[in-house]
Amino acid sequence: MNSKAPHELGTSAAPRVVIVGAGFGGLYAAQALAHARARITVVDRRNHHTFQPLLYQVATAGLSPGEIAAPIRSILRRCKNVEVLMAEVTGFDLDRRVVQTGDEEIPYDYLIVAAGATHAYFGHDEWEKFAPGLKTVEDAIEIRRRVLLAFELAERRAAAGEAAEPLNFVVVGAGPTGVELAGTLAEICRHALAGDFRTIDPRQARIHLIEGGPHVLPPYPEDLSRSALEQLQRLGVEVLTSAMVTKVEAGAIYMGDTRMEAAVIVWAAGVSASPLGKKLGVPTDRAGRVQVEPDLSVPGHREVFVIGDLAALNDAAGKLLPGVAQVAIQEGRFVVKLVRHEIEGHSATETRPAFHYHDKGSLATIGRAAAVAQFGKIHISGYIAWLTWLFVHIFFLIGFQNRILVFVQWAWSYFTYERGARLITGSTKLPGWKESEGASKPEHEEMHASVRK
Amino acid sequence: MNSKAPHELGTSAAPRVVIVGAGFGGLYAAQALAHARARITVVDRRNHHTFQPLLYQVATAGLSPGEIAAPIRSILRRCKNVEVLMAEVTGFDLDRRVVQTGDEEIPYDYLIVAAGATHAYFGHDEWEKFAPGLKTVEDAIEIRRRVLLAFELAERRAAAGEAAEPLNFVVVGAGPTGVELAGTLAEICRHALAGDFRTIDPRQARIHLIEGGPHVLPPYPEDLSRSALEQLQRLGVEVLTSAMVTKVEAGAIYMGDTRMEAAVIVWAAGVSASPLGKKLGVPTDRAGRVQVEPDLSVPGHREVFVIGDLAALNDAAGKLLPGVAQVAIQEGRFVVKLVRHEIEGHSATETRPAFHYHDKGSLATIGRAAAVAQFGKIHISGYIAWLTWLFVHIFFLIGFQNRILVFVQWAWSYFTYERGARLITGSTKLPGWKESEGASKPEHEEMHASVRK
Repeated sequence: MNSKAPHELGTSAAPRVVIVGAGFGGLYAAQALAHARARITVVDRRNHHTFQPLLYQVATAGLSPGEIAAPIRSILRRCKNVEVLMAEVTGFDLDRRVVQTGDEEIPYDYLIVAAGATHAYFGHDEWEKFAPGLKTVEDAIEIRRRVLLAFELAERRAAAGEAAEPLNFVVVGAGPTGVELAGTLAEICRHALAGDFRTIDPRQARIHLIEGGPHVLPPYPEDLSRSALEQLQRLGVEVLTSAMVTKVEAGAIYMGDTRMEAAVIVWAAGVSASPLGKKLGVPTDRAGRVQVEPDLSVPGHREVFVIGDLAALNDAAGKLLPGVAQVAIQEGRFVVKLVRHEIEGHSATETRPAFHYHDKGSLATIGRAAAVAQFGKIHISGYIAWLTWLFVHIFFLIGFQNRILVFVQWAWSYFTYERGARLITGSTKLPGWKESEGASKPEHEEMHASVRK
Repeated sequence: MNSKAPHELGTSAAPRVVIVGAGFGGLYAAQALAHARARITVVDRRNHHTFQPLLYQVATAGLSPGEIAAPIRSILRRCKNVEVLMAEVTGFDLDRRVVQTGDEEIPYDYLIVAAGATHAYFGHDEWEKFAPGLKTVEDAIEIRRRVLLAFELAERRAAAGEAAEPLNFVVVGAGPTGVELAGTLAEICRHALAGDFRTIDPRQARIHLIEGGPHVLPPYPEDLSRSALEQLQRLGVEVLTSAMVTKVEAGAIYMGDTRMEAAVIVWAAGVSASPLGKKLGVPTDRAGRVQVEPDLSVPGHREVFVIGDLAALNDAAGKLLPGVAQVAIQEGRFVVKLVRHEIEGHSATETRPAFHYHDKGSLATIGRAAAVAQFGKIHISGYIAWLTWLFVHIFFLIGFQNRILVFVQWAWSYFTYERGARLITGSTKLPGWKESEGASKPEHEEMHASVRK
């Protein structure tokens, strides 16, 4: 193997492993390589690892961003053979074995690409500004801003004597994220905000969950998705299945000819793999996932691996492995095992084992004391499933301090029904609200035309 | 008194008190009026009250914004005669007794203006984008972003083989905020970040504190500002007094002909009262503060009061009352007492008492175990002063949950030296860094010209 890079860590002899992306897959891979005789470089365009399973709690003002994200370099601080670079990867040259970040090139002996995926607008990217998705801390803050601002603007209209239509919140896509968002939004309206307004009644707000498929939580067995549906309805969420969104505009969503007013629209449908997948120049599926070999390497390049949401691999039953943390983590560890084996002097040509995913079960929360869980044959719903969800997530959350902080806030919200992080930052405009168009303070022309006298 | 507004709270009979601004003055005034026979309207352009004394901890990644801010309407939830409006006040008509928010008008019988102050650039507002100040949650997040990003970019340059100049951080103004910022920045470089980088050494970073006056902490007695200076220097802060900033540009600051490179510049100098002061059409001082009567009303309008940083009032010794929370809170309570007295049927014409400020002492923290405190004749420095500061701030922080969260994080950082909220969100550009100009990914042209091969 060629080890080009002269480097700063004083282990020039060691082969160099470059990991692109510090999500679950990349991070666990880096940690598993911590004590290998190799120089590891983790490249991510953000400085922090985001604990995506709890992102919806930031979007719904339950947690602060800092509590579900941790700086990549401090997570890996003790891994002295690991360096972290905050940079945007722009491409690869698999023949020259370099990762490109603009004009810079980072050489590798092994490359692990774990760049993840984002939500897809089915070719209608213009919908994004009206219906943001939830993949990054910035997304979560933006959704939080829109939800809280909708109530503030409604209160102002009402206080100014205008007729107050109940607010409509629309969540598109009933996968785990969509279900969590819809359930939690319903909870906030009924409880956290209920007592805070004088002229509007947040409990009047309507939460719509729109799913293209026939069931909520598509990947789950039917009994659990039926249970999830009932739990959602009990929370007051209006669920619409087999409903295709055909158009999104500022403040409204269309299903065919049906138009639905929406104060806030959140997009939790569709998956689109990171564009870096295509840049590898190997076959990808419709969602842009890389079709990897059974050992997770890319065809023709044993030294290049793709893991996590960016990888398309089928299980024994021929079903595509889901884009969940567990898969990414297991793939990361599997790949690292192969790499270490070869670094430790074994022939790089011997045939490699195939990756097998061990499904430890899946959990989805819906709201307060509402969740579904599947562990093999065991299906659980409601309170027990919810408690399990709580502890699993506290346990896997990165950073001991974060665990304490999240635990404190969950305990607090559980008893008080309050939400700790109800901050509106940034713009005070909302798409679709008349006052959000035009000049400096047009909201007043629009909203407060009726002067209190 | 005239009570124009027909209103929604079903207390039309009650006189209406409008409070502009929900800082310390406005918030405490609203709470003190909670059970008065009056209808209270609190107008603020933000949805949250910001606990400004701890804003510097957000700017230095110690706390999350949600932990030092609380939604105004949930703070006042139990005050049933108080309504909260998130709106921007644009002016007043004192004769018609209305507050204007764009086209809307909110009538009042009593008006309390507590719109606060912000930092001043001595007529050079163009400096702001190069040297942000610290007054809002957004400011704090922006400063945090710049500080953390500076280290990331430096690491990238170094990793790409470029000569690594030690980073310069410049804080302008050595009032309490400037001192807190400089001290904490020094601490972060020495501790929190020290072990996280592989090629640069954050401990090499230089923190400069620039003060125009002869002493740090100008308002404090000389022995305490001397002690503060020593404590700052012990933390590694380079203090420059009697130094006038004459120019600020991207990445550099000038004092006369001396040019100082700066990766990040923070502005903590000068005070400029809210522009709403001038809109009252009454005399203001050079900083735009309203020159109030001894009873804090404005000349010629007994029903209009100005409190907090926006009010200019001298103490018995003829010294201007400082722009601190204590003054605002006491003024708020004083004004409310007058208003309640008159609402409860006493003649609005009888002569009113004058406001007297009871100085409960002042505290300024400098960094870990470093602070100064003055309680009348008693002057304290160092550890004891710091502990006092901690407990006073935990105690006055709004929201029981916030107190727990802040306490947990302070305890955590004290023992681990870590900072819990090291998040870079938003842009990845930094003014003054060559890569921050120009097109899509120019940083690479600039920074990584030297290709690792």
